[in-house]
Amino acid sequence: MAEKIYRVNMTTLTATSEDVPEKWRVLGGRGLTSTIVAQEVKPTCNPLGKYNKLIFAPGLLAGTMCANSGRLSAGAKSPLTGTIKESNAGGTAAQCFANLGVKALIIEGLPQKDTWYNLHVDKNGVSIQEETALAGRGNYEVMKTLTQKHGEKIGILSIGLAGERRMAAANISVKDPDGNIRSHGRGGLGAVMGSKKIKYITIDPAEGPDVEIIDKEKFKKAARAFTKALLENPVSGQSLKMYGTDVLVNILNESGGLPTRNFRDGQFAGAEKISGETMRETIIKRNGKPHHACHAGCVIQCSQVYNDKDGNYVTSGFEYETIWGFGANCCIDDLDIIAEADHLLDDIGIDTIETAVAMGVAMEAGVIPFGDGAGALRLLREIGEGTPLGRILGSGAGAVGKAYGITRVPVVKNQGLSAYDPRPVKGMGITYATTTMGSDHTAGYCIPVNILRIGGFVDPLRKEGEVELSRRLQIGTALMDSAGLCIFVMFAILDKPEVFSLLFDMINAKYDLDMTVDDGRTLGRKILRTEHEFNIAAGFSNKHDRLPEFFEEPVPPHNAVWDFTTEEIDSFWGV
Amino acid sequence: MAEKIYRVNMTTLTATSEDVPEKWRVLGGRGLTSTIVAQEVKPTCNPLGKYNKLIFAPGLLAGTMCANSGRLSAGAKSPLTGTIKESNAGGTAAQCFANLGVKALIIEGLPQKDTWYNLHVDKNGVSIQEETALAGRGNYEVMKTLTQKHGEKIGILSIGLAGERRMAAANISVKDPDGNIRSHGRGGLGAVMGSKKIKYITIDPAEGPDVEIIDKEKFKKAARAFTKALLENPVSGQSLKMYGTDVLVNILNESGGLPTRNFRDGQFAGAEKISGETMRETIIKRNGKPHHACHAGCVIQCSQVYNDKDGNYVTSGFEYETIWGFGANCCIDDLDIIAEADHLLDDIGIDTIETAVAMGVAMEAGVIPFGDGAGALRLLREIGEGTPLGRILGSGAGAVGKAYGITRVPVVKNQGLSAYDPRPVKGMGITYATTTMGSDHTAGYCIPVNILRIGGFVDPLRKEGEVELSRRLQIGTALMDSAGLCIFVMFAILDKPEVFSLLFDMINAKYDLDMTVDDGRTLGRKILRTEHEFNIAAGFSNKHDRLPEFFEEPVPPHNAVWDFTTEEIDSFWGV
Repeated sequence: MAEKIYRVNMTTLTATSEDVPEKWRVLGGRGLTSTIVAQEVKPTCNPLGKYNKLIFAPGLLAGTMCANSGRLSAGAKSPLTGTIKESNAGGTAAQCFANLGVKALIIEGLPQKDTWYNLHVDKNGVSIQEETALAGRGNYEVMKTLTQKHGEKIGILSIGLAGERRMAAANISVKDPDGNIRSHGRGGLGAVMGSKKIKYITIDPAEGPDVEIIDKEKFKKAARAFTKALLENPVSGQSLKMYGTDVLVNILNESGGLPTRNFRDGQFAGAEKISGETMRETIIKRNGKPHHACHAGCVIQCSQVYNDKDGNYVTSGFEYETIWGFGANCCIDDLDIIAEADHLLDDIGIDTIETAVAMGVAMEAGVIPFGDGAGALRLLREIGEGTPLGRILGSGAGAVGKAYGITRVPVVKNQGLSAYDPRPVKGMGITYATTTMGSDHTAGYCIPVNILRIGGFVDPLRKEGEVELSRRLQIGTALMDSAGLCIFVMFAILDKPEVFSLLFDMINAKYDLDMTVDDGRTLGRKILRTEHEFNIAAGFSNKHDRLPEFFEEPVPPHNAVWDFTTEEIDSFWGV
Repeated sequence: MAEKIYRVNMTTLTATSEDVPEKWRVLGGRGLTSTIVAQEVKPTCNPLGKYNKLIFAPGLLAGTMCANSGRLSAGAKSPLTGTIKESNAGGTAAQCFANLGVKALIIEGLPQKDTWYNLHVDKNGVSIQEETALAGRGNYEVMKTLTQKHGEKIGILSIGLAGERRMAAANISVKDPDGNIRSHGRGGLGAVMGSKKIKYITIDPAEGPDVEIIDKEKFKKAARAFTKALLENPVSGQSLKMYGTDVLVNILNESGGLPTRNFRDGQFAGAEKISGETMRETIIKRNGKPHHACHAGCVIQCSQVYNDKDGNYVTSGFEYETIWGFGANCCIDDLDIIAEADHLLDDIGIDTIETAVAMGVAMEAGVIPFGDGAGALRLLREIGEGTPLGRILGSGAGAVGKAYGITRVPVVKNQGLSAYDPRPVKGMGITYATTTMGSDHTAGYCIPVNILRIGGFVDPLRKEGEVELSRRLQIGTALMDSAGLCIFVMFAILDKPEVFSLLFDMINAKYDLDMTVDDGRTLGRKILRTEHEFNIAAGFSNKHDRLPEFFEEPVPPHNAVWDFTTEEIDSFWGV
């Protein structure tokens, strides 16, 4: 059965389905959400207004036996950055959509009535119901209640109180196989879902037409080789499973690129206490799970289950960026406090990176001192309570900086930078400055080449080659995000370029195509251009591709400064 | 003695003086501040950072016998809008600067020490002192203390607690002849002064070289004719003296253009209770002053002194826009409450227009109900206290909208619209959309032609002729703001075009020039272009010249909508 586009109009409360236009056939995930946003959303619109649309799209390889292909893309105009936005997440929703043959779900319009709704997607299409029971509830309760009601196999997308309040850093939560939470974290897409008054979406894959693969044998062969490559790579096959993404704390600290005390230092005295090694030890001691897949078919298993001292579940999907954000960035050297923060924010439904950066800025402003873990947890609860201070924090790092009139605010296009200082890790700085997504480390993740020396080496302390590196990775990432692949497959691809062609073998087998690696790069470039053009039409220019002034200050231990000229940065887009 | 440019560097704590470059000789007020900002300020800089500069410049005719020529221009990159900003105010400071031969005072850099400073300008130049006594104090106490210390003739510029906290809506206060307060209201220039840690500037005009006029007789003759024209015009000679600017409440209400309940209606049931007529009656009954000059030589005298029920001073310079903002906009039909709000905000040092619009948005968000005067005063006090809610409000209407996730936020380029609904008064809408200043009614004030039928008539309900009207007025205003003239001289000029040439007679007599009216218009155009180019270099484009989406909704009583196409708006700048 052919795939369909599902379209929900919240103004008329109607749902329809459409055939997939031929030009969208070989688009998926980010490629598809960005194309639809660019085509259907008024670039100058208010992101929380009637002209914005929220789009979900599984990747081109979703629901297949391709390893790590279960990421779901969500797209819209971002309330945080004002740019186009794609944010992808693990969890089971992408595979549920794929099994139902849903190429994309487009949600448009604003309801006329001031009430909450839920959407239910199944083999018969989309139904829209008013929702009273779960409005006002946290994500954990939503996941638990809906799993009890619909069974373990249901896919769930939901927003917490941050999304209900349309906070600019609100995220969209996705149920993982254990009923825990993954997140479309960045860019405030939860606020867009909140503006459309949708508390949650359930996706029942039962009796779906399943995923069609034209050449099954060819697909299977490539998929097996791909899995093997992921498992053979030391990072995707071992380190991430062993220590989670938190393996990076010691590595970045060692390199001097671990932003500490709101980007004042590149090394954190408490690094060891929040490192992946310490986390693993703690998890094992407390009978947690040191590794865990966020979706079926994930062989990397960087997720984990982190328990408290009494062995009770606290959080999973406990990422390096979150741990860095509340850890080194806020000088809190206590994994238990950070885990509690992660749990709270997942429940409230707000981006842990943006909120951690916002917390660092609040500490900078003197709201609470650096290192005050108990104070930080108190402030995070205020986000859930919707106090004025909670609303400032929930609006992201830029909003905190503005409310307190300070300039040491690490944002680009109003989105917080993350766990890699752009001065001693210059490739990341180029990505922060130039990505179409506001600042987003995942958009062109230079760490393998800048720090891990996988797939070559570009000296992170020097400018040479960084623009080219970031561009190459941004193009590749646009493609990965379109296939629905986890970003960490890049370790295997960078290490062994022949792994890249396996992706096209799978895509070609599925769709009966003859795409080459070069065609893939062309597609990646086209996606970036589409996004960039949307941003220009929304009012952005190269003048917004700039890092904050304080990065002119040298950061220890290398005393590196941000020294790219505007011309060098602008060469990225060829302005 | 030749005029000088004074330059203060707050990083090195040094003050220097410079000769006036030939190309700046026939620039003053806004023309000079905008030229200096465009030339010396990095367009993409953080407005509160080291690259911004704060510039004060009296107008070309300041300190002369030309009536109403005592406005002072302040310029910088705005922390509220991110655009170039000129905000001018009455009071005595411009004449003090002129008498000292100060063409402009440029303040640059940020102090290295975390302490407050004051500047003292006198015949010997500028001196910089640390300030401890008055930091943390309100503007009224600053004015009183410094007047006692230096005498009545001292000119004073100061910031209140909003400026000290670098709130984006903070203003700069100017002492008037009675020791009360006028304000550089719009665009948050008080936050720029606060970022430079300057609590106040005193200007002692004693023994200054005075203003040089080359052809005194010619000047005198033109100045007399100009004064006569102002006094003969029914608006500048009578209405404004009788009722203040608040005369407009009944006029705008009648026309259906008085934005009510956060721009939901064009008429306010309580209009009569907050009208200029009611204000005059109240002032007379309580032994206030129904009219009053904000600077020596003002013959219009639209200011007043408003007392409370016991005859005690509450406020002066009690403007239509403030009364509209807390009145119709917030549905508070009580002049005493609005007067108290005006007093509070002058003391805290924050723009009454921006804060009133922010209050309307807070009411929209349900923080307090519309019409809750006591609640509004309580919230305003929170701005002074620096609570989180106070900081949100002090950051302006756009910030309130973002914190509460709502879309009915009447701002353009993040600055609040003022007392004229753009749907039934379309000329004002074009000005809001296109001015280089963010939305600012004074930048191209179409009310005389749209509503009062002075200087012709362009139907405010129709699009025809509005772009041309706004452009003509924006050009003229750039010129008035450069001469240091009060905007209300425009009533006499629009009424009798020959009055316009008297301005050039005075400028020519003062500087020994042969400027024609056409040369003047060319200069006005050039100033606008300079500002527009700065904004483009700062990252703005025609995409930012847009009104919020909710103006597509019809507003009673005319059910007018904002129906300009983007092409029609963009024809203003010829994009």
